[in-house]
Amino acid sequence: MQLLQQKIREEGRVLSNEVLKVDSFLNHQIDPQLMQEIGLEFVRRFESKEITKIVTLESSGIAPSVMTALQLQVPVVFARKRKSLTLKDDVYVSEVYSFTKQEKNEIAMSKNYVTADDHVLIIDDFLANGEAAFGLIDLVNQAGAVISGIGIVIEKSFQPGGDRLRETGLQVEALARIASLENGEVSFL
Amino acid sequence: MQLLQQKIREEGRVLSNEVLKVDSFLNHQIDPQLMQEIGLEFVRRFESKEITKIVTLESSGIAPSVMTALQLQVPVVFARKRKSLTLKDDVYVSEVYSFTKQEKNEIAMSKNYVTADDHVLIIDDFLANGEAAFGLIDLVNQAGAVISGIGIVIEKSFQPGGDRLRETGLQVEALARIASLENGEVSFL
Repeated sequence: MQLLQQKIREEGRVLSNEVLKVDSFLNHQIDPQLMQEIGLEFVRRFESKEITKIVTLESSGIAPSVMTALQLQVPVVFARKRKSLTLKDDVYVSEVYSFTKQEKNEIAMSKNYVTADDHVLIIDDFLANGEAAFGLIDLVNQAGAVISGIGIVIEKSFQPGGDRLRETGLQVEALARIASLENGEVSFL
Repeated sequence: MQLLQQKIREEGRVLSNEVLKVDSFLNHQIDPQLMQEIGLEFVRRFESKEITKIVTLESSGIAPSVMTALQLQVPVVFARKRKSLTLKDDVYVSEVYSFTKQEKNEIAMSKNYVTADDHVLIIDDFLANGEAAFGLIDLVNQAGAVISGIGIVIEKSFQPGGDRLRETGLQVEALARIASLENGEVSFL
């Protein structure tokens, strides 16, 4: 997606060979026009699939998901991040390891809003090691729903998440695929 | 706003005289069409005001803010909730007490995205005691920006936040104002 690549080139900050910050349009400040274009692009990429619901993770997954959902006229459910808690009655829970923060967290989704009748498009902002995406897949599997595909805004293709996800056979669409962040430069695949 | 009141009547769950859950369309599952209507309504209510940026709080403030921002063609900045941390160099920080969770948290906003040149519309999902709204006001004041108004999706008018906010002289617009949750019933003002 050209518009997104251009925005990453202009505003992304390369903090190391692994870390790209896009706080100016996705992770802290949000560019709503860009989110609308991202939504339209996800709709195009998954147009052959049945989708009854979008599942994402708070907080940065919400804006691109809502814009996609508006086009598809389906609801969004955002899983919540939380420290481990004992109360698990009404929620599906999955464990997600954060390499950035070097800690395990749980993500949780109510049992009320995704059911075995649903066809779910999973959307997330970043794909690196794939931990968050596999956590979301786990939640949707626990609900017994069909996964129609995985939509990622920015994939760091030099990390293993993309390969791991595609090996599942699911349709994975990343709108910007970064080959390298070496020498402070963003190179796209 | 009739559409919102109707949705609250149909899907809101009254858990006590103080607690209303709207997880089916705002706080966990999101209804994107309703968010779009909410965005249009905020634009109408603040049409006399200059607005260059929307500031909200993760996670439930993001969807209504992004829909409002799309109409206004301005960016959204979402403040982050966090446990107290020592590192405060690049962020404005304010302390917010949660009556629900009975704990103090910090909310933080980068110094990069709201400046003294901005005219800010603050948007949040719920107004009860006003703690979150005053925290957001504090962050925007620290940035030296003008506050153009406060947009609230659901106000529990029987709690003191609404009065406290209106006493500041700021334009406060709540799209649904709840007079009472007594006897398990939602009554609007």
